[in-house]
Amino acid sequence: MPYSYALGMAPVVELIGRCPGLVLAVYAHPGYRAESGADIFEMCEARGLKCETNQKIFNIAANKENIYVLGVFQKAGGCLSPARPHAVFVNPADAGNLGANVRTCLGFGIRDIAIIKPGADIYSPKAVRASMGAIFHANASGFASYQEYAEAYPGYERFYFMLNGEAEIGSIAGVRGDTFALVFGNEATGLPDEFRGYGGRSVRIAHGGEIDSLNLTVAVGVAAHAFYKLRR
Amino acid sequence: MPYSYALGMAPVVELIGRCPGLVLAVYAHPGYRAESGADIFEMCEARGLKCETNQKIFNIAANKENIYVLGVFQKAGGCLSPARPHAVFVNPADAGNLGANVRTCLGFGIRDIAIIKPGADIYSPKAVRASMGAIFHANASGFASYQEYAEAYPGYERFYFMLNGEAEIGSIAGVRGDTFALVFGNEATGLPDEFRGYGGRSVRIAHGGEIDSLNLTVAVGVAAHAFYKLRR
Repeated sequence: MPYSYALGMAPVVELIGRCPGLVLAVYAHPGYRAESGADIFEMCEARGLKCETNQKIFNIAANKENIYVLGVFQKAGGCLSPARPHAVFVNPADAGNLGANVRTCLGFGIRDIAIIKPGADIYSPKAVRASMGAIFHANASGFASYQEYAEAYPGYERFYFMLNGEAEIGSIAGVRGDTFALVFGNEATGLPDEFRGYGGRSVRIAHGGEIDSLNLTVAVGVAAHAFYKLRR
Repeated sequence: MPYSYALGMAPVVELIGRCPGLVLAVYAHPGYRAESGADIFEMCEARGLKCETNQKIFNIAANKENIYVLGVFQKAGGCLSPARPHAVFVNPADAGNLGANVRTCLGFGIRDIAIIKPGADIYSPKAVRASMGAIFHANASGFASYQEYAEAYPGYERFYFMLNGEAEIGSIAGVRGDTFALVFGNEATGLPDEFRGYGGRSVRIAHGGEIDSLNLTVAVGVAAHAFYKLRR
């Protein structure tokens, strides 16, 4: 579907504030009560958007959740910046994890996000919610394969996060500039070994032997934080 | 309840391997098929435990999930080590987050976990699964209040992770020894300001202004990783 839903006040506020051009409709549930200083009707009016009261749409889009504000938006097919850092998610399985990871990347200065398909939909309601609306600050684009992505941004310095990566993350002393990409695999399988042949460095995050791997959300957090510090 | 369930092969393998003394029963679903080299019946037998085939228990404990192996275990009320690092979770709301955070701590060398009540049950099936069984390598203990915890381990060097902590995590140059504690608040509210008066340092993890906070799982990951590096 070319459109999706932002469910709940926080994601809708991000949607109308950051991407008003993508808004198709905003709805309030009949049970909606404005909090002081945050009335969705006023906020929409201030941006020339209309907010309607409607019950039916909540039954359809919000299932049985306690949601009182809902935004319908057009999925944006953005182009990644050729001058800023990228995060690349290869075949992400879970939309909630993807949304949380986009939020983390954004927090650590990476707003350009490539999704290698097949993978979760970054604009699904679950991803939007897990990102707490951060997806509307990001700039995301899907690619049919990693090769397609890599060919589109050939000059990028690439870091592949793998369990048995050659460089420990603490040994990376710097990046050449802002044109680098952090590449992460699927939650269950990680990045396949063949990525070692794709040009770039394989990186591991050292941890103790009590666990066999970090979960992806933590790996993205540690990695994005480390590169954020390298750039400051 | 004094007992809980480990659902699925991986958590059950951790349970019987790490904490055989806590095992009350192990069950296989009638539809269970052994993978080569990982037969739950053989693994139980090798440890002097009995594994029974039973369908009914799966209907009760595993709901509608596709689970074929199940362990019933006694919840352990451990004592924290007075000589190793601690992670302290104050009023954690979600058992899945708690399990994932315990896994992260364990991966970065912290196996002693304090839970300040009220809070999620670290031995709930959801926490056990999210930890992928790592909870059975950990040593967890509940406390009625933060004061109770702090009085039990008075010599500990304490680090309170707060949005507006005084020290940026990168500025922490070392720890005095292994007797330190990383203290984390609830997912939604973080640590209340009053923790500043409890003796210790408040720490923040710097991030960009595009988001108002990191999610707790990421904060725990970045924090535990930073202290893991300090100790190596």
